[in-house]
Amino acid sequence: MTVLPNYAKVFASATVANVASGFDVLGFAVSHPGDTVEARRRVTPGVTLQEITGDGGRLPRDEGNAVVVAVRELLRRLEEPFGVDIVLHKGMPLSSGLGGSAASAAAALHAVNLLAGEPLSPEQLLPCSLEAERAVSGAVHADNAAPALLGGFVLVRSTNPLDVISLPVPPGLAVVLLSPDIEITTAVARRMLPTEIPLKDAVSQWGNLAALVASLFSGNLALMGRSLSDLIAEPIRAELIPGFQDVKKAALTAGALGCSISGSGPAVFALVETVAEGEIVAKEMKHAFKVAGLKATSYISEVGAISPRVVKEG
Amino acid sequence: MTVLPNYAKVFASATVANVASGFDVLGFAVSHPGDTVEARRRVTPGVTLQEITGDGGRLPRDEGNAVVVAVRELLRRLEEPFGVDIVLHKGMPLSSGLGGSAASAAAALHAVNLLAGEPLSPEQLLPCSLEAERAVSGAVHADNAAPALLGGFVLVRSTNPLDVISLPVPPGLAVVLLSPDIEITTAVARRMLPTEIPLKDAVSQWGNLAALVASLFSGNLALMGRSLSDLIAEPIRAELIPGFQDVKKAALTAGALGCSISGSGPAVFALVETVAEGEIVAKEMKHAFKVAGLKATSYISEVGAISPRVVKEG
Repeated sequence: MTVLPNYAKVFASATVANVASGFDVLGFAVSHPGDTVEARRRVTPGVTLQEITGDGGRLPRDEGNAVVVAVRELLRRLEEPFGVDIVLHKGMPLSSGLGGSAASAAAALHAVNLLAGEPLSPEQLLPCSLEAERAVSGAVHADNAAPALLGGFVLVRSTNPLDVISLPVPPGLAVVLLSPDIEITTAVARRMLPTEIPLKDAVSQWGNLAALVASLFSGNLALMGRSLSDLIAEPIRAELIPGFQDVKKAALTAGALGCSISGSGPAVFALVETVAEGEIVAKEMKHAFKVAGLKATSYISEVGAISPRVVKEG
Repeated sequence: MTVLPNYAKVFASATVANVASGFDVLGFAVSHPGDTVEARRRVTPGVTLQEITGDGGRLPRDEGNAVVVAVRELLRRLEEPFGVDIVLHKGMPLSSGLGGSAASAAAALHAVNLLAGEPLSPEQLLPCSLEAERAVSGAVHADNAAPALLGGFVLVRSTNPLDVISLPVPPGLAVVLLSPDIEITTAVARRMLPTEIPLKDAVSQWGNLAALVASLFSGNLALMGRSLSDLIAEPIRAELIPGFQDVKKAALTAGALGCSISGSGPAVFALVETVAEGEIVAKEMKHAFKVAGLKATSYISEVGAISPRVVKEG
C-alpha cells in the first residue's frame, strides 16, 4: 500500500505567452522566476488559502484567487476528495505579463495532485487551471496555463475542445525577460485589440507562426529569428510600454534572435542562442528601459524548463 | 569540359495549395497528374512556344503563357543566354485548382536550366516562376510555384522577401484529388474573399496551421486530421463547387484524415494514410460528385513527390 504524502511544496515557472507570431496559441516555460505553493492535507474538506507571501497583500485570499479556484476544481474531480491548506509564495511581479496566475495554479494543482497520489496527468489538470484563468481574467486562454503545467514549448491548437501539443526546443535556446516596474491588466490589453484584422496581415502572421514551429523542430535559429514577428498585438500593445521600440531595437542590435511582448505585457522577452548571449542582451535592454524612465528586473534562463518542479514532499 | 544538352524533356507535378489551414502559405506536390515540357536549344535568342498539346487550343501561345514569361525571366538571369523552342504538354485540366501554370513553369524552368548546365538552384528559379504567376493570375502567391519547383511539402513564410521552407512528409502519406468538370478562375475565387476577417477565426486558423506543421514533423496523423480545417476560404469558395459538402463528408466517412478545396478549386483533395485507403476514398468522393451532377476525374498518389523530374535529356 502506497503511503500518500501529507505535504508538498512545488514550484511552477513563469511563462511567455503569444511568443510574437503565436498570439493566443503559443507559450513556453522559463526556468525562473516562478511561484511556489505549499499544500498540506487536512481533515475537513475544501481548500483554504492560509497565506500569501510576496504579493504586498494585494492578491485576493478567497475564490477570486486562481489557486483557490484551481484546487477546488481538482478536488471535485478526485474520487476520494480531501481538504487542503495552501500557502502561496509569489516569486514574480503582479500583472507583469509573465503568467503569474497560471504559475500559481500549476504549482497548486501539481502539489495537491501529489497529495492525492497523482491520479491525474498534467493534461488532465489543465482544465482546472483554465477554470482558474477564466475566474481571474474573464477569458479562457491556455497559452500560459499549458506551458506552466506541461513545461517546455506548447502549442494550443484549440481550447474548445482542448488540444495542446508539446513542441521540441532547440538545445541551449535561452530567453531574456525584462519586467519593467509598471503593470498592465490582461483585460485592458485585450480590449485594445480589434475584433477584425486584415486578411493579408493574418496570412503574414500564420506564415510566421508556421515557420516558427518548423524552426523549433528543425533547430534552424536563423529561421526562428525571421519568424518572430507580430503584426497583430505588438503594434497596439507596445503603446502601453514606455520605450518598447528602443528596448526591442537594443535586444536585436545586441544579437537577440527576436524580441516581443511577453503575454499582454509589460514584460518584454528576447530569445537568444545561449544564456551567455542573454547576459549581454539583458544589459542592453535594461539600459534602454532606464533611458525610458523605467526600472526593470531581468531574468535569464534556458527555454523549455521542466514545470512544475517538486521542491519538498513528505 | 562539360557538354551541355541541347534537349530536355521535364515533367512537373500538380500541386495542392492552401491545404485547408494554410491559406496562401502552404502547398505540396503530388506524383501525378502534371505537365511536361520539351525544351530545345536554338541559335537565335529568345523563347518560342511552338506547340501546346492537351489544352484544346485554349491557352495563349504568347507572353500570356506562364511558360513564356518564366523562361524569359530565366534567360535574363543567365550569363550566357541562348534561345529555346518549347513544346508544352498539358497533363491536367485548365483552371482546376491543381496549380497548372505553376507546373508548366516549373517544368520549363528546370528544362531550360538543364540546357544551361544548371547554373541556378530550384530556389533561384522560384522568382522566375512567380513572375509567371503574376503575369497569369495578377497576383504573386508561391504556394503552387514553390512545391512544383522544390517538390514535397513547402511552407511560404513570406513572398517579400521570398522565404520558403521545405517541410518533412510522413512516410506513405497519400492524397486523393478529385477534379470535377467545371472551371474556376483564381482571380474570381480570390475576389470572393473578404479583406478583413474576425480575429478569433484568424487565431483558430493559425492554431490549426501550426498544429498541421507540427504533425508533418512528428508524423502524428491523428493531429494532422484535427488540423485540416479552414475557416477562411473554404466556407466561401465551397459555394462554387456543387456538392462540395457531400463530397467532403464522403471522404471523411470513408476514412480520410481531412478534405478541403485544392487551391481555389474546383478540385477537391483528401489526405489519407495510404494509397490503398485512397482508392476507397476516391470512389466515395467520385460518387458524391456524381450525385451532385458532376463528372470528376480522380488521381491518387503519395504526397511530396519529387518535382520536377527529368524524362529525357540529350
